Amino acid sequence: MIDLYTWKTPNGRKPVIALEELQLPYVVHPVDITRDEQFLPDFVALSPNSKIPAMVDGENSVTLFESGAILQYLAEKTGKLLPASGAARYTTLQWLNWQVGGIGPMFGQLGFFANRAKERMPLAIDRYLTESNRLLDVLEQRLSQSVYVGSDDYSIADIAIYPWVVAAITNNPTLLSDARAKRPSMDRWMTKLAERPGVIKGMDVLQDTSVS
Amino acid sequence: MIDLYTWKTPNGRKPVIALEELQLPYVVHPVDITRDEQFLPDFVALSPNSKIPAMVDGENSVTLFESGAILQYLAEKTGKLLPASGAARYTTLQWLNWQVGGIGPMFGQLGFFANRAKERMPLAIDRYLTESNRLLDVLEQRLSQSVYVGSDDYSIADIAIYPWVVAAITNNPTLLSDARAKRPSMDRWMTKLAERPGVIKGMDVLQDTSVS
Ligand SMILES: N[C@@H](CCC(=O)N[C@@H](CS)C(=O)NCC(=O)O)C(=O)O
Ligand SMILES: N[C@@H](CCC(=O)N[C@@H](CS)C(=O)NCC(=O)O)C(=O)O
Repeated sequence: MIDLYTWKTPNGRKPVIALEELQLPYVVHPVDITRDEQFLPDFVALSPNSKIPAMVDGENSVTLFESGAILQYLAEKTGKLLPASGAARYTTLQWLNWQVGGIGPMFGQLGFFANRAKERMPLAIDRYLTESNRLLDVLEQRLSQSVYVGSDDYSIADIAIYPWVVAAITNNPTLLSDARAKRPSMDRWMTKLAERPGVIKGMDVLQDTSVS
Repeated sequence: MIDLYTWKTPNGRKPVIALEELQLPYVVHPVDITRDEQFLPDFVALSPNSKIPAMVDGENSVTLFESGAILQYLAEKTGKLLPASGAARYTTLQWLNWQVGGIGPMFGQLGFFANRAKERMPLAIDRYLTESNRLLDVLEQRLSQSVYVGSDDYSIADIAIYPWVVAAITNNPTLLSDARAKRPSMDRWMTKLAERPGVIKGMDVLQDTSVS
């Protein structure tokens, strides 16, 4: 059984989508980051970086934080969603890394300066809006050449990127209002992912606040 | 033969250290990001995200960008610097991801707001200085329990993290003046890495500006 410690954020949804796609049994333990539960000692013991998500797989005695590593672990445990060898394996890992190092932190900084900072800093908003649009353009170009992001097969790269693109567009309705309309290949890919039962369940995790 | 397109920055040094440690033959092609060479069409064809480093391995017809994916590719090509299976494999990938998604982007934002932004934004400097110190504390805690970052064996996680810690301390001599003195385990680890011939060569890449 897999224990997943997570919250309803883009990084928190990624492993849930993967677990659903892979049909692995799991239990969700909510870590409410709006109440600073990521700093509670029991959670920090699993995730010393004090961020969600974290995962424990009792079967293999593996405890992990960092969503990219969790996705790769689940893919290699099952032999699915990531080619075992060859160029497509590394192209998939390349786009997974691009999410972890690029769209995750940069969309995250845009969200902070555009919506949460105590002071309005136009230069900072502009910095992250420009970079976010550039990253979305890179994604559009990739999806104009490839059915899915990593290769023509659905993979952990799609699972990593999709929740971030949805969150960026949803949380910045004005700044990124035409993000999808301007990018037809990305739009097609988003429509296709939104129909997958595993993606629907993953995006919905903990939306029912009665879960405990 | 491996062709590496890179520059003398933390991300640019990571694959050079790995290639040296693994004693793989390679050629360095400088991409001077201070002259915007990352936007030249020949480079963008290899690295559509317009960032260094990028790598071509003619032997396997693999073209990659994203330093984390390049490090994993080189490790798996040689069967070194990353365990092939078991908990230590994923713990190593976890700390690699922590660098790619955490200390890379956050130290990078500190460098921007502290040293390069056109306007002084104290709240932004404070945001990234606080996060950088928090990340260094997480590293110190890890290195107080483990000889190297990924496990008790030297790995691609050390190779990814070391150049970033050196750069952060070097580029922010005032803000991070006591970073090493306050963190004895990290200090011990830095001293040990600085002595490795592969690390020395990787950190030195393109320092001789006559290279072309
Ligand atoms: N690179 C990490 C990032 C994790 C992360 O930033 N998680 C956020 C939620 S999406 C979090 O826990 N934030 C709470 C905090 O920063 O204190 C990953 O991909 O797992
Ligand atoms: N996540 C990427 C980041 C690459 C990156 O940010 N490279 C920097 C140099 S350290 C760069 O090319 N900057 C030029 C630019 O952003 O235009 C990786 O690890 O390879």
